[in-house]
Amino acid sequence: MKIYKLISAIFLCLPGLVQAQHIDLQKTTERHLVNGVKLLNELVSIPNDSNHPDQLVPNLEWCEENFSNRNWSIQQLATKGFPLMLASYEVEATNKTVLFYFHVDGQPVDRKKWNQADPYTPVLKKINESGDWEEISMDKIEEGIDDEWRIYARAVSDDKGPLAMFLTAWDAMIAEGHLPNYNLKVILDFEEEIGSPNLPAAVLDHREKLKADMMLIMDGPRHLSNEPTLSFGARGISEITLTVFGPRAAQHSGHYGNYAPNPALRLSKLLASMKDDEGRVIIPGFYDGINLSPEEKMILDAVPDDEAEIKRKLGIGFTDQVGSNYQESIQYPSLNIRGLGSGWIGAESRTIVPADATAEIDIRLVPESDPERLFGLVRSHIEEQGYHILDREPTDEERMKYPKLVKWKGTISYQAFRTPFDSEPGIWLEKAFIRAFAKSPIKIRISGGSLPISPFVDALGFPAVTIPTVNSDNNQHGPDENIRLGNYREGIMTALSILTEKL
Amino acid sequence: MKIYKLISAIFLCLPGLVQAQHIDLQKTTERHLVNGVKLLNELVSIPNDSNHPDQLVPNLEWCEENFSNRNWSIQQLATKGFPLMLASYEVEATNKTVLFYFHVDGQPVDRKKWNQADPYTPVLKKINESGDWEEISMDKIEEGIDDEWRIYARAVSDDKGPLAMFLTAWDAMIAEGHLPNYNLKVILDFEEEIGSPNLPAAVLDHREKLKADMMLIMDGPRHLSNEPTLSFGARGISEITLTVFGPRAAQHSGHYGNYAPNPALRLSKLLASMKDDEGRVIIPGFYDGINLSPEEKMILDAVPDDEAEIKRKLGIGFTDQVGSNYQESIQYPSLNIRGLGSGWIGAESRTIVPADATAEIDIRLVPESDPERLFGLVRSHIEEQGYHILDREPTDEERMKYPKLVKWKGTISYQAFRTPFDSEPGIWLEKAFIRAFAKSPIKIRISGGSLPISPFVDALGFPAVTIPTVNSDNNQHGPDENIRLGNYREGIMTALSILTEKL
Repeated sequence: MKIYKLISAIFLCLPGLVQAQHIDLQKTTERHLVNGVKLLNELVSIPNDSNHPDQLVPNLEWCEENFSNRNWSIQQLATKGFPLMLASYEVEATNKTVLFYFHVDGQPVDRKKWNQADPYTPVLKKINESGDWEEISMDKIEEGIDDEWRIYARAVSDDKGPLAMFLTAWDAMIAEGHLPNYNLKVILDFEEEIGSPNLPAAVLDHREKLKADMMLIMDGPRHLSNEPTLSFGARGISEITLTVFGPRAAQHSGHYGNYAPNPALRLSKLLASMKDDEGRVIIPGFYDGINLSPEEKMILDAVPDDEAEIKRKLGIGFTDQVGSNYQESIQYPSLNIRGLGSGWIGAESRTIVPADATAEIDIRLVPESDPERLFGLVRSHIEEQGYHILDREPTDEERMKYPKLVKWKGTISYQAFRTPFDSEPGIWLEKAFIRAFAKSPIKIRISGGSLPISPFVDALGFPAVTIPTVNSDNNQHGPDENIRLGNYREGIMTALSILTEKL
Repeated sequence: MKIYKLISAIFLCLPGLVQAQHIDLQKTTERHLVNGVKLLNELVSIPNDSNHPDQLVPNLEWCEENFSNRNWSIQQLATKGFPLMLASYEVEATNKTVLFYFHVDGQPVDRKKWNQADPYTPVLKKINESGDWEEISMDKIEEGIDDEWRIYARAVSDDKGPLAMFLTAWDAMIAEGHLPNYNLKVILDFEEEIGSPNLPAAVLDHREKLKADMMLIMDGPRHLSNEPTLSFGARGISEITLTVFGPRAAQHSGHYGNYAPNPALRLSKLLASMKDDEGRVIIPGFYDGINLSPEEKMILDAVPDDEAEIKRKLGIGFTDQVGSNYQESIQYPSLNIRGLGSGWIGAESRTIVPADATAEIDIRLVPESDPERLFGLVRSHIEEQGYHILDREPTDEERMKYPKLVKWKGTISYQAFRTPFDSEPGIWLEKAFIRAFAKSPIKIRISGGSLPISPFVDALGFPAVTIPTVNSDNNQHGPDENIRLGNYREGIMTALSILTEKL
């Protein structure tokens, strides 16, 4: 069946379809760059905070119109939240199918922190002679685009930029009279920035419609060196909220300090017992199954990380010692305290023994980590510290009965995924990249951050690879989010190389 | 000189002054109780949040008027903040002098949390047949006052109630044709609830005007048993704010979890290293100098604490093991984490490695604790954990140089004080209490909470004793602050017994 498909694909390619070598990627991209920037400006002008679903409707409408105009068929896939949008373009029923993923929503904006009137009105900037970013008229793009110029707007990099690159590359390809030699599906997620809570169930509901031979995710920044990059996986993520209880209500620290057990101390001791001074989890079994082979270490060493520069950028002189370098560190699950709270701090602090203390923890997952198993290990460890674990506030009886009480809330958002370098998309994409950039991309075994891709991979069983294109200093999620126009240009070229690469 | 004073005092007593046995404390109190409640209601109707100095002015004016009307001489003592008020009444220049302390300001109010329209409009309540507190008309006091009724208002117990008790007792004494056989000074603090930040310097500035033979503090609740109580000291208080630094800005926990050191974990480990599982400080030397003798343990055992009831009230089945019972626990300095904060918790939590983590600590002091020495011990301990201590944010150079960085801010608010039971005021007050209640008061060696009294004791060298009168369930500092009218009545009688006790 597979051989039949391959033969028929080759056969079907012959008559009128594209031969990759017939298109000049650089010149074709150049001809469409100005229109591509206009398309991007139009798209980022639509507010898209997924905490406000009413903002998402005009985004969905824009996407429906822009794929329909290009002769794609579109449909909404219902979820328990905002719908997904699926766009399809069938070149030939018997060809292979590639599923592209983008998300259209953006992070919230704190307008006061932006250096422009409206984060949804794109602003073009260049570095002036004093080394500062200076606004220049958007009309300047008509006279030629400098790679170092940047456009500032919410979602311009994350992830409307890549979607506009893809559409621009499509237009460029069509203008050159070409078509891919494979069928395409594009799935658009409108809830990524709120953790895609409805995605896993929706992917199962709509699995027939999402079937494909591989999935390509266009999201996220390139390697810090800004060289062309492919990323073959992403860590998954799960969350734990721990609340340790002291007295039923906060007590006067004079009257009851030295008497009523302090939940902030208890929580500190509990958290401290989980990791060593170098940031390694010391709960037995937490890293089981991860044994980096010499070959795998070579793959990781091939990534040209400048760790001195990373440390300088982060303002840290020393790092945790989970792995012996940055790439190794993200091959392991993490156990990160993302938030702590008890009583009050700063001007609001009060002389109390607090009633409770809370830690927010995220556990990033790798394919070797079964999150249920990790949760079990952490729970057992907490019990070994003398705690009785509840899934709610304790009753008065429980308060009197147990010396140590903790409330546990655990959520598994989604699993990790990791695709081999020598998988079909790995080999194919490398060819496209070499055609575009005349060299192999940097290949990331797994990225530290999480993407809601494992629901697709698990439900549909295809390999998935991420194609990051934007500059790593794009201030993703922050104020002054931006895209470097050189990255935008090369992103269009990247998409064009993939669209025109024979599969 | 001292003997001369004593003889002249006895001599001067003879002609027209009070003989204590000539006044019926109970009946005299009863006759003035209704007027006393009206005086209290008038006083608590003046808002008195010391975070808003403009609210304090009418309080000061009320006090000036009410002491002037009673033929006391008044003056304001300047401080760097709101002035203190000093009222003096000289019976005979050569007599002894007793300095009374009250504070007039109150805690802030969160109106939403009160079960009455205005915390500054006193409300009378009784327990109805269903066992709930039910409002009754304030006019009811004219028909007879039930000891179990309560008045609800901000500062009604803390500390306007005791001031109104004192003035009512004064009026009752004068109405009976009596005067004390000692001179009186009353110092009124308007900044107690914000920690009396300007008091220590002001006491030094005005030490000549504050000279006295002893100081009596009328503030705070009686022992939990609600039996007549004397308290011979109070722990002092100092505060430390520790901020541990991670990356310069919060980082994505996916990209840098396992790599960038997490300040919340670092802080947890640091705090955990300071105390054992039973809440005892394990920094060597912290408890030095405190060795409770068998006699002292007997004194502590004589306090009729119902620890099962305390634990039930607090909702704790088990206590810290600093002392072997409640009274012992407060003979030691405490090291209490009153607040913790890092990143965000709850609905606001974000997947980050936080930039920093802060702990707010209060150290309650006992007379054996030199706060500078304790600060030194804690600082040495922190350094032994590998930290470089700063008094400000780290520079980029320091971030690269030191593996562990912490910012330290330490403040010594005021020291502890403790007066012997067999001191002059101890013996004298016991006689007054026996006359009023026909039994010895419960004697507390030191109270766990702090009072800004040591600046007086240190500057003026006199003994100080606290006379707590209000019910312990008065919700001091909270919403629905109240005073039990039986305590108000007995408080007036207590003040009257002291005013009429021969010194």
